[in-house]
Amino acid sequence: MKNLSVSQRSQLVAEKLKIKLENIANFSLDPNQIMGRNCENMIGVTQIPLGIAGPIAVKLPAREYYLPLATTEGALIASVNRGCKATRLSGGIRVKVELKGVTRAPVFKVNNLAEAEKLITWIKKNFNQLKQQVEATSRYLKLLDIEPFITGKNLFLRFSYDTAEAMGMNMATIATQQAVSLIELKLKVKCVSLSGNFCVDKKASWLNFIQGRGKCVWAEARLKKAVVKQVLKTTPEKIVEVVLRKDFVGSAMSGSLGFNGHFANIVAALFLATGQDMAHVVEGSLGITTAELETNGDLYFSVYLPSLMLGTVGGGTGLATQKEALAILGLGQGKKGEALELAVIVGAAVLAGELSLTAALAAGHLVKAHEKLGRGSK
Amino acid sequence: MKNLSVSQRSQLVAEKLKIKLENIANFSLDPNQIMGRNCENMIGVTQIPLGIAGPIAVKLPAREYYLPLATTEGALIASVNRGCKATRLSGGIRVKVELKGVTRAPVFKVNNLAEAEKLITWIKKNFNQLKQQVEATSRYLKLLDIEPFITGKNLFLRFSYDTAEAMGMNMATIATQQAVSLIELKLKVKCVSLSGNFCVDKKASWLNFIQGRGKCVWAEARLKKAVVKQVLKTTPEKIVEVVLRKDFVGSAMSGSLGFNGHFANIVAALFLATGQDMAHVVEGSLGITTAELETNGDLYFSVYLPSLMLGTVGGGTGLATQKEALAILGLGQGKKGEALELAVIVGAAVLAGELSLTAALAAGHLVKAHEKLGRGSK
Amino acid sequence: MKNLSVSQRSQLVAEKLKIKLENIANFSLDPNQIMGRNCENMIGVTQIPLGIAGPIAVKLPAREYYLPLATTEGALIASVNRGCKATRLSGGIRVKVELKGVTRAPVFKVNNLAEAEKLITWIKKNFNQLKQQVEATSRYLKLLDIEPFITGKNLFLRFSYDTAEAMGMNMATIATQQAVSLIELKLKVKCVSLSGNFCVDKKASWLNFIQGRGKCVWAEARLKKAVVKQVLKTTPEKIVEVVLRKDFVGSAMSGSLGFNGHFANIVAALFLATGQDMAHVVEGSLGITTAELETNGDLYFSVYLPSLMLGTVGGGTGLATQKEALAILGLGQGKKGEALELAVIVGAAVLAGELSLTAALAAGHLVKAHEKLGRGSK
Amino acid sequence: MKNLSVSQRSQLVAEKLKIKLENIANFSLDPNQIMGRNCENMIGVTQIPLGIAGPIAVKLPAREYYLPLATTEGALIASVNRGCKATRLSGGIRVKVELKGVTRAPVFKVNNLAEAEKLITWIKKNFNQLKQQVEATSRYLKLLDIEPFITGKNLFLRFSYDTAEAMGMNMATIATQQAVSLIELKLKVKCVSLSGNFCVDKKASWLNFIQGRGKCVWAEARLKKAVVKQVLKTTPEKIVEVVLRKDFVGSAMSGSLGFNGHFANIVAALFLATGQDMAHVVEGSLGITTAELETNGDLYFSVYLPSLMLGTVGGGTGLATQKEALAILGLGQGKKGEALELAVIVGAAVLAGELSLTAALAAGHLVKAHEKLGRGSK
Repeated sequence: MKNLSVSQRSQLVAEKLKIKLENIANFSLDPNQIMGRNCENMIGVTQIPLGIAGPIAVKLPAREYYLPLATTEGALIASVNRGCKATRLSGGIRVKVELKGVTRAPVFKVNNLAEAEKLITWIKKNFNQLKQQVEATSRYLKLLDIEPFITGKNLFLRFSYDTAEAMGMNMATIATQQAVSLIELKLKVKCVSLSGNFCVDKKASWLNFIQGRGKCVWAEARLKKAVVKQVLKTTPEKIVEVVLRKDFVGSAMSGSLGFNGHFANIVAALFLATGQDMAHVVEGSLGITTAELETNGDLYFSVYLPSLMLGTVGGGTGLATQKEALAILGLGQGKKGEALELAVIVGAAVLAGELSLTAALAAGHLVKAHEKLGRGSK
Repeated sequence: MKNLSVSQRSQLVAEKLKIKLENIANFSLDPNQIMGRNCENMIGVTQIPLGIAGPIAVKLPAREYYLPLATTEGALIASVNRGCKATRLSGGIRVKVELKGVTRAPVFKVNNLAEAEKLITWIKKNFNQLKQQVEATSRYLKLLDIEPFITGKNLFLRFSYDTAEAMGMNMATIATQQAVSLIELKLKVKCVSLSGNFCVDKKASWLNFIQGRGKCVWAEARLKKAVVKQVLKTTPEKIVEVVLRKDFVGSAMSGSLGFNGHFANIVAALFLATGQDMAHVVEGSLGITTAELETNGDLYFSVYLPSLMLGTVGGGTGLATQKEALAILGLGQGKKGEALELAVIVGAAVLAGELSLTAALAAGHLVKAHEKLGRGSK
Repeated sequence: MKNLSVSQRSQLVAEKLKIKLENIANFSLDPNQIMGRNCENMIGVTQIPLGIAGPIAVKLPAREYYLPLATTEGALIASVNRGCKATRLSGGIRVKVELKGVTRAPVFKVNNLAEAEKLITWIKKNFNQLKQQVEATSRYLKLLDIEPFITGKNLFLRFSYDTAEAMGMNMATIATQQAVSLIELKLKVKCVSLSGNFCVDKKASWLNFIQGRGKCVWAEARLKKAVVKQVLKTTPEKIVEVVLRKDFVGSAMSGSLGFNGHFANIVAALFLATGQDMAHVVEGSLGITTAELETNGDLYFSVYLPSLMLGTVGGGTGLATQKEALAILGLGQGKKGEALELAVIVGAAVLAGELSLTAALAAGHLVKAHEKLGRGSK
Repeated sequence: MKNLSVSQRSQLVAEKLKIKLENIANFSLDPNQIMGRNCENMIGVTQIPLGIAGPIAVKLPAREYYLPLATTEGALIASVNRGCKATRLSGGIRVKVELKGVTRAPVFKVNNLAEAEKLITWIKKNFNQLKQQVEATSRYLKLLDIEPFITGKNLFLRFSYDTAEAMGMNMATIATQQAVSLIELKLKVKCVSLSGNFCVDKKASWLNFIQGRGKCVWAEARLKKAVVKQVLKTTPEKIVEVVLRKDFVGSAMSGSLGFNGHFANIVAALFLATGQDMAHVVEGSLGITTAELETNGDLYFSVYLPSLMLGTVGGGTGLATQKEALAILGLGQGKKGEALELAVIVGAAVLAGELSLTAALAAGHLVKAHEKLGRGSK
């Protein structure tokens, strides 16, 4: 099926299975751009409803954004929207973002500890040479660090990169391959796997949670008591209690890697709309929610997301609908700092969505929200 | 913006932001079906390239399926396809599936241990009455179990349901609300949050990993040595070594909740194509890969996925493109057992994709595969 | 050195190393009782200072106990003592205990899923026969359950036992060996290891945290505001804040398996004094602390310990000093229910010690306490 | 009871409870040294049988040690002894040790992210001043690093120290208090708790596992095939299989923080004998075991312990029996490097004990070993 056009392939499948693929065939993406880049054996597209929430008010610097959210889960966009309104009316969301770097960690088999130490010493000594070699693989990539970890005959080297506006996993992989080849050549050791699960890519892990990966984001807002009442239909006290009993005690009791309500929902909807890799929702939704009562009765609310892998160029970001979604955010034009700005937006959006869900739970309105919107299967 | 049509809203956004949303506006989904159900403030759709892999051969009973995979990650479908071929040539994939049940766990605030015990005793005594009441909320839902967990003043009740062919989170939430109302009325206790993060929904957690949630799937295949060589370009020995050093040692060292290579990629692509909730990729990608050398030199390869939340009715499964993707799998016609069949397919597809990536790593071909397909950002 | 007496062996070591072992040689334990039972190659004893705290007031039924605590950590006993006083003045500590059972989980190598299922089916069918056989290995042991877990070719069977007043790990191991032999004989499968780390013995694990092991204990107390002030030198509000920021947020951020301050200290001191296996401190110190403000300003304080492996017969409990320590608690006479009573005491003692440390942190007195007592190395 | 002598207090307790405390009263430790330092309300001692294993052969530099092990678990010392013999006959154990530093992490309450950032900036700027101040609290302590972590209003500062030959938790706490006082004074922020559970002290945590704490140790040995057969009664192949299925697959399935067999047993016995803090067994027993088949059929075996908190001065190390046990190891004379040497010994001893248990499981001899030695309760 490799050499067929999209429509030929789609027809073939439809005929063979005696089904119709009319909607899948309805698309405006350019197959020539997609083939050999985003998707093989293409038969069309999956259409995901795209809605808008906001504007969301972000501070430092002050900006407002409409949020493009792709989802099939009723009530989600309405909920994020409500969170946008409540935070906007309270002065907006302050966000802090830190570049942690894209990581790739090959695993080498060494014969013993002495060999591992020799390798580590060599890397420290030849860091600049390695840096030069790996940075020659891409004009966007900078090597930040190489961190070694040993157990038995296994030596992991965690390479960390700045990949500019790209999410950069591919770039990092190619660069690391280059370094690995050099190390294998010079030190006669064997790399068993270019990824040694110490990266950690697309799995929930404490390593990423504690040390961060990609972009690390903190967002906070101070909600006026009256706004909590009018917009969120509950009280700061009740929200604080839900965060304590659900996000902390419940997560502690269940061995959760993630002390939050539903980061994954908002991260998934924004990632899908803007062309990110959907498997990165796994680590992107790691994080912690906190809520506190201010002395004047207002609500302090925060979210922390240590492992956001995202970009504004490369991957799915260049596809026509995704590019338009990025344009809604004022992004996708290749300016420096766009990836960090997208991380800021994700952090703020997650805060809005998390706040709204927590408030719905606090008010006892979860079922009502879902019964009004998004209900289905009774 | 609530009362606008999709195109009016889209136009408004485009004008306001001085951008074009032409591709987003290109869709064949029915907005009337979507509004109030899957998406609010709709402005169009996100188009995700949809490709096909397979056929994949599943055993017991023997069936073949073409896999619809929605993704923007180049090389993924080619990789799954290669895994399908290798397993097909080796006699197919055996899959075991178990219904664990959809869970929802409200958290109650009790005054002390005695009150918690009283509540638990009441529930045991009145289980049948509760069952009758909650099952009245949907003709598809069956209450399987209520499991209590206490710490301090926090009492979690983990309700577990059979929700037939629906993923069922909404149904389960509505049913649990019914039970909660009854408990609050009868026992004068207060439910603080209908979800107490002991469900655990859309977060990585050891509770789901150990006890399972939704559907729990095991898949295994025995790859002929010659097939590993010809199709996967490596040897069983090398694959076994990658699984050991990467999936086990690397995951152990990094505190990962998931001892596998990239379950998330395949789960995300299948979930997206078939209308599942994308936030469920987080728990759906939990699991373990194993590889062993058979005495005759063949390769035994297995995957284990304890927490698959999916369905063939409800949610996004009724959308036009998603319905067609389900039709490719012969699903979506409301037959009994379809959800379990979909879980079987996901398990088999994950095995195929996991096998192929592991083989690429073992062969040192990861970069080559990505350079040929899906490359981008150099 | 095997056939020497304790003093001969001690002398030999002293001479060879040119050192004196006079204090080690000073003991009143009976070597004949110890050899072949508790210690090989004995050269004497380690003396650990033993102090007393309390009395601690436990409720339901109401009892008071002096706590024997063996420790070298200055300030620990004083701190537990203070917690005893504060809780005693507030009406005592209510404790709930549940027998979870001693577990042992051998791992079998099966050829495939079908073989695993066959084995599981056989076990369900022949549970009564297995029960009879394993219970023949000891007149104290009862088989409670056998729970299977599969991944790839690995089948774990988690056997759970009631071992009466003994901690029972040895008994459970012998009984499980019996079951394993029968299974191997009847089903021609191979047990690779009698312990498959799914027990989980002496390691921190989420399995034990979530499902419990040995004895599971909850303890709670309601501290009067005035008592908190006078005895603990702080306020309920401050204690609540320390528990939140330290035990919940700090533990969440650091990937801790244990949301408490220092359960390990109290468990270790009581285990050491009463002849328990010190490696069981690892799982015995798992657990959660909670603190809440009551509406009248009092403090609610609780601890939860899901995995206490302990007993009042067997192991080190029969040694002379340990037996006397058990006598201080009114235990060690072989009465039914003594092991559960000891678990109750451990739970109460942990609450007292945890409360006192938390209060010291809240008051900013940690350093002062250690400077007054137990300081050392400046 | 505070002002009584040990014997007066012991007598009082005995009379009150109508029991005898004769053995507890038998001790040679000096109460004057203990009071105000190691134990309050002392009534005597707990005697723990102390045995000897070895010699154990350690390499780089080559040394042999007899191991003092305090335990009540029959078969443990015999097992360690067997591991010593097998490794000694195979050329000894190579050990690598790294000082990670003693850590203490207070948690501050800040008003918002901006305040947290201000504090962090201040610390970076004033690191040298802080260093000078905290190092003035002890002539042995050096400040290595201060690492900040933020979530919401919670700011954790993880102070890391070199405490020379002392385990150093007390020193580190006093030094951190000094730094905290300065920070509170200069920045008008409030430290909520001097320990914020981001240290992480005496709890199992991924932070310590990944970043290390105290001393981090790797040990490895290459066992000759013939030695495995003659001494350990099994084969390298079987040992490799037990490590895979038990230590890796079993630990992965059960959510264990520790991929080993029984590190806790050996760590506990050595810690107890040498006067360490027994609650540090919790983090000290974290770690990973690996086993591999060498091409010539020999066995490679390794252990990794990332979080050993220990010392040769301070705490319980000065007590008479503990001092003698340290003398058996040639330690306790206050020489520089003794604490690292003790860590090396612990690493080697853990390897020996782990190897022997794994071999017993591989040979199917676990029950036999326990039946011969240390059995009890049938």
